[in-house]
Amino acid sequence: MATPVSPLAPARFPDMPAVAGVRVATAAAGIRYANRTDVLLALLDPGTAVAGVLTRSKCPSAPVDWCRAHLKAGKARALVVNSGNANAFTGRNGREAAKITADISAKAIGCKPADVFLASTGVIGEPLRAEAFDGVMDGLVRDAAPGRWQEAARAIMTTDTFPKGASATVRLGKTEVTICGIAKGAGMIAPDMATMLSFVFTDAPIGAGALQSLLARGVTDTFNAVTIDGDTSTSDTLLAFATGAAAARGAPRIARASDPRLKDFRAGFARVLADLAEQVARDGEGARKLVEIVVEGAKSKTSARRIAMSIANSPLVKTAIAGEDANWGRVVMAVGKAGEPADRDRLSIWFNGIRVAHRGLRDPAYDEATVSAAMKQPVIALKVALGLGAGRDRVLTCDLTKEYVAINGDYRS
Amino acid sequence: MATPVSPLAPARFPDMPAVAGVRVATAAAGIRYANRTDVLLALLDPGTAVAGVLTRSKCPSAPVDWCRAHLKAGKARALVVNSGNANAFTGRNGREAAKITADISAKAIGCKPADVFLASTGVIGEPLRAEAFDGVMDGLVRDAAPGRWQEAARAIMTTDTFPKGASATVRLGKTEVTICGIAKGAGMIAPDMATMLSFVFTDAPIGAGALQSLLARGVTDTFNAVTIDGDTSTSDTLLAFATGAAAARGAPRIARASDPRLKDFRAGFARVLADLAEQVARDGEGARKLVEIVVEGAKSKTSARRIAMSIANSPLVKTAIAGEDANWGRVVMAVGKAGEPADRDRLSIWFNGIRVAHRGLRDPAYDEATVSAAMKQPVIALKVALGLGAGRDRVLTCDLTKEYVAINGDYRS
Repeated sequence: MATPVSPLAPARFPDMPAVAGVRVATAAAGIRYANRTDVLLALLDPGTAVAGVLTRSKCPSAPVDWCRAHLKAGKARALVVNSGNANAFTGRNGREAAKITADISAKAIGCKPADVFLASTGVIGEPLRAEAFDGVMDGLVRDAAPGRWQEAARAIMTTDTFPKGASATVRLGKTEVTICGIAKGAGMIAPDMATMLSFVFTDAPIGAGALQSLLARGVTDTFNAVTIDGDTSTSDTLLAFATGAAAARGAPRIARASDPRLKDFRAGFARVLADLAEQVARDGEGARKLVEIVVEGAKSKTSARRIAMSIANSPLVKTAIAGEDANWGRVVMAVGKAGEPADRDRLSIWFNGIRVAHRGLRDPAYDEATVSAAMKQPVIALKVALGLGAGRDRVLTCDLTKEYVAINGDYRS
Repeated sequence: MATPVSPLAPARFPDMPAVAGVRVATAAAGIRYANRTDVLLALLDPGTAVAGVLTRSKCPSAPVDWCRAHLKAGKARALVVNSGNANAFTGRNGREAAKITADISAKAIGCKPADVFLASTGVIGEPLRAEAFDGVMDGLVRDAAPGRWQEAARAIMTTDTFPKGASATVRLGKTEVTICGIAKGAGMIAPDMATMLSFVFTDAPIGAGALQSLLARGVTDTFNAVTIDGDTSTSDTLLAFATGAAAARGAPRIARASDPRLKDFRAGFARVLADLAEQVARDGEGARKLVEIVVEGAKSKTSARRIAMSIANSPLVKTAIAGEDANWGRVVMAVGKAGEPADRDRLSIWFNGIRVAHRGLRDPAYDEATVSAAMKQPVIALKVALGLGAGRDRVLTCDLTKEYVAINGDYRS
């Protein structure tokens, strides 16, 4: 099934700098796909701190369990990711496959298995042949080199139609530090987490505890504010690695997330997460339109988030947008079903800046031709004002098209 | 848009007896549709008790507000339903349109407006011209006659592809009493309520309080156990009317739902609700398969319901079933995202009686050809055993097809 590149894809993969202390290599281990890379190794210098946010699924994959167990120590020497097989719902064999993968990698690298972080994405319920890593790992370790982000992003793709990367260069103290991230997404994307896999690397010397705080706060309005189909994966994994290599160039060592010297870093880190999360929404399975939903005037931010998610996950709203119809009646329905405070007769709704409903009624100034033209745009900004309070939130989603159904239903034919 | 009749439709509309004390008429008032009936009047003898379950949407339609206000008195003389316009999100005009409709009806019937119950279904946000009822109401009152359930069920259809009716005849004391119901559904169907509109009539002499208890308990495992797309309508309305006419034939008057003489009636009433709810699932927009989801071994019935609904509302599970794939990996995903207690390594999953996963692994005895043949059936029974407790529940849904997206996205083209 050759899926064309999403019409919402960025024009090209961004130029991304190397991150001191990180070397990357990819290989084709033939786990499921032919003629493409499917294994990513990121080698991390000794002293690298790690933080992570993992799926809240009650049925997580074996690599998620592995990461959860080893995140506590806060140290990492390597990241090994494969695409094609999620190693999820594979029972005791799955746990063993994760351990074997870590053992093979640790041996080739010369580190402890507990310092190797794992992620797998692809089909669920098929045994993962961990021996496949044996054939490629020594080569990966030998070939690992700085940069190569696009190669890395390609190796972790499944039904993604384009590789996803983002970077930022910010000051920490008087030293420039670098933040680079890659992600893969496509389907089975919902909070919490919103993406299946994303990995962010920095040379900033930030301790594991502080990095964990930064990451946990950073996902709220980025990856956790994206939904494609409301289906949370068993494998969702976001890991952040801080090599600390910038300390040699004079960057201060940071132990607490509240350190005021983190101001620029925090902003850059958030920009990278937001950029990656938006790329995931732009590559939703079958997506033709990126949809930004802003809810304001709610009782609280939490209430605004719930209402925005109710709209973002409504099949009727998403199919209407696919049909280029500013169907605000369905938006009202989705507001109403969220269960949050809302007053029908105070609601106003805008599509791409055009107010279509005002205080519970069709806007009298609403011009059908103007609205129809606006709905043909590839990006749709849907704003709902509740008129009840100061709570505001924003989430991203995409439309629901026949292509989504085809990708997820016709794959056997 | 001429939609073909659902392949899951019953062979024909059932034979349904008249209910003493109920007379029915339909008319074409031209509210939105051409060449079809769009108004239903049910005339109810004096002394009729009424009970109702209404949408929990925070943005309900004007007729829902009207019914909620007048249900308290527990008395009804008429039901007036229109299709084509939902009179939802129509502000003050909508409230006035509801009042005018009740006034016109009450005048023609010779009763109080408060004794006229209203329901509207169709587009949201368009003003309802209540004057349309003025032209047809006298004729409806004049023509009203017993029976005519199929006509009644047809007049309230919107995107339904077949009229929905069910009946039961049971003993109350030593007297036979009759229960007849009609429903309309199709899209925007989710608990709570599961159907947009359903009306049940009986000649049993049951007081309003007892009827309300019976109805509230009756919906839990019927209408509230059906979901098509997770989208709760602003207009969902289920009303039950008890004329009491069977008292003249010796049926005892029932004041409390706990009255042991209600045993047969309760069972018959539940059968009618269950039959109507299943017909709604069989007529889900674009549905090709009826899907029964049974979750057992959960910590509680509530937990089982949440997990079953998580599966039933998962786009990935629904598209896989549309693709005739027994994709149990997606079922595991949906179990995991429900947030309820579940142990990946105790999970077993069956499709149409064939165990495909056992204790967290692909069933070793699983035969692909046998399963593929089973998945071609029009009815798919999906069973999940959690192995944690005695909680069990059952919900109905349908598959998610390209036709659903076409019906809800292509309507403008």
